[in-house]
Amino acid sequence: MRPSIFQTLEKAASDAGKRNTMATANLKKAVGIDFGGTETKLARVNERGKAEAAASFPTAEAPGPDAWIAAVAAALPQLGLSNEPETLRREIVGIGIGAPGFTDFERGYIYDLTNVPGWKAVPLADRMEARFGVRTRVDNDVNAMAMGECTFGVGRLYQHAVFVTLGTGVGGGLLIHNRIYRGAHSMAGEIGHVSIDLNGIRSPQGVGGLEQYVGNRAIVERAAAALRAGRASALRERYAGDFSRLTPRDIAAAATAGDALALEVFDFVALCLATAFASIAYLLQPQVIIVGGGVAQAGPVLFDPLRRHLKDRLSPLFYDRMDVRPAALGAAAGVIGCAALALAES
Amino acid sequence: MRPSIFQTLEKAASDAGKRNTMATANLKKAVGIDFGGTETKLARVNERGKAEAAASFPTAEAPGPDAWIAAVAAALPQLGLSNEPETLRREIVGIGIGAPGFTDFERGYIYDLTNVPGWKAVPLADRMEARFGVRTRVDNDVNAMAMGECTFGVGRLYQHAVFVTLGTGVGGGLLIHNRIYRGAHSMAGEIGHVSIDLNGIRSPQGVGGLEQYVGNRAIVERAAAALRAGRASALRERYAGDFSRLTPRDIAAAATAGDALALEVFDFVALCLATAFASIAYLLQPQVIIVGGGVAQAGPVLFDPLRRHLKDRLSPLFYDRMDVRPAALGAAAGVIGCAALALAES
Repeated sequence: MRPSIFQTLEKAASDAGKRNTMATANLKKAVGIDFGGTETKLARVNERGKAEAAASFPTAEAPGPDAWIAAVAAALPQLGLSNEPETLRREIVGIGIGAPGFTDFERGYIYDLTNVPGWKAVPLADRMEARFGVRTRVDNDVNAMAMGECTFGVGRLYQHAVFVTLGTGVGGGLLIHNRIYRGAHSMAGEIGHVSIDLNGIRSPQGVGGLEQYVGNRAIVERAAAALRAGRASALRERYAGDFSRLTPRDIAAAATAGDALALEVFDFVALCLATAFASIAYLLQPQVIIVGGGVAQAGPVLFDPLRRHLKDRLSPLFYDRMDVRPAALGAAAGVIGCAALALAES
Repeated sequence: MRPSIFQTLEKAASDAGKRNTMATANLKKAVGIDFGGTETKLARVNERGKAEAAASFPTAEAPGPDAWIAAVAAALPQLGLSNEPETLRREIVGIGIGAPGFTDFERGYIYDLTNVPGWKAVPLADRMEARFGVRTRVDNDVNAMAMGECTFGVGRLYQHAVFVTLGTGVGGGLLIHNRIYRGAHSMAGEIGHVSIDLNGIRSPQGVGGLEQYVGNRAIVERAAAALRAGRASALRERYAGDFSRLTPRDIAAAATAGDALALEVFDFVALCLATAFASIAYLLQPQVIIVGGGVAQAGPVLFDPLRRHLKDRLSPLFYDRMDVRPAALGAAAGVIGCAALALAES
């Protein structure tokens, strides 16, 4: 079997480590664009996965494809790059974009971005290549994060991994034989809609979907409901009277300090995650499940009960052969992952 | 991309169709061995997926690897084949074995067969190759059936498929980019343990596993409990007083004839399957889910409510792009699938 691009990149990173006094000027570079509903973040990222320069603009100030591409052109000089195709082509190997919605990676096409108006049916890769003259890859934002985490983060040591991100939404990406697996129509990895209860909470996507139980709003609402019902907790003093302004971070901090209610909330989140992760393990038997996103920052108050419930719900033949680990890249995972989409083929 | 072995086989089958008066003597052949807990079935299968000759022996009469390999040697002449390596090597391209338990396909190794004593830690492929001189592949029986269905049955037109078999146990196999995907340790595809209820029925494998709701015993027990509780049904006359002797086939026949209780039982089975299938669709987005095994013979009383519940539990972006189809190979799926394991590499 030929070495995968991940192995190649890893070897490159390892070789690079041995001579890390060398200038980085000769390393391949790509631009990663983390296209968020609120902010569009850009970075120049080298083949070791290091963001060398960063820029951003508010997405609402560049509405629709024309304005957005113009805003990208305006931002490139802030990354020390040209926005003229002839020059840019010599500076970077490509551009990778992670977009918040349904995309077709093969065609570099955006079907629809749920929370960004004006982005229905856009052949974005073609548009970008016409403007900037460099190869452009477009994927959904969670796949891009999975790509980054699997290339430069925790996943780089595995060939079969599942990446899950916990936040307002719950998403995922699958690494199979060292490659992101996108399914028949580029939409695989929707872990937030995996059902954990056939009679559970209904959403537009189905019944009992994981996101309905462990998304940010569900976590806050669970704590708020207990507080409104009069439950004692250190959380009571924060946002008293308007408990819906609590955040998962507040609850995680209280849990870490030993607050019983907050610990219960995270135990329930862990139980729901373990139910879905056990299904994923039986189905795909990955070597690792990597958990990223804001809620994963909770640390041991999440991961300890998660491993306990998972052990209770999996045969040892599966549990003993699978790791569950927090993601490593942190806040920069988005742009680095987007750049990895372009670096992977260079 | 090079044509996959499936495409090659399909093309061969198609070409063969055009000249189907030609003698089959020149077609490649393999021996498929469906190693069941009760019976071991063998067939000589050609590269078009046709079983040309068959034989069998009771598994209990050949206890343990030595006796079993001797029984296979005794059966080969019944298939019109030699059991001498020098001759056999010219007659067939290989042997494929599907075994009822945990196997390691890469090593051709049997970890353990749950219901067959004397089969712990057996390097079966090595043993067979030493005795018969032809390449031997060993997989679990459900993967072998999936392989057969994906090579010669419904799945041959798809690149991304999930195969599910419904019987005493519920198992599965995954086709990803035209190849059976076995996960990190050869055990992927355990669809029977995908959870549909985080607070559901406990088993040694976890909580809420699909098999606990739609396995043969669960189906019969659900009907029997309603009958014991006095529920009116055409099923009452059969096995009166010992309703646990009912079979899924009896219940399917009653449902097809319009019996309300039997229809309810199959609607519940369909609901449970739809919950798991929706999770699988969101995770993997296959082009098709192929349903085989005894219970799948129920026909429309299973598939109609299954499609209805699935539509209710999936976004149209997923539902409209995925087929749900009954398996095509029927009773011979086992041996043909086993032979396909060997033919796939020839």
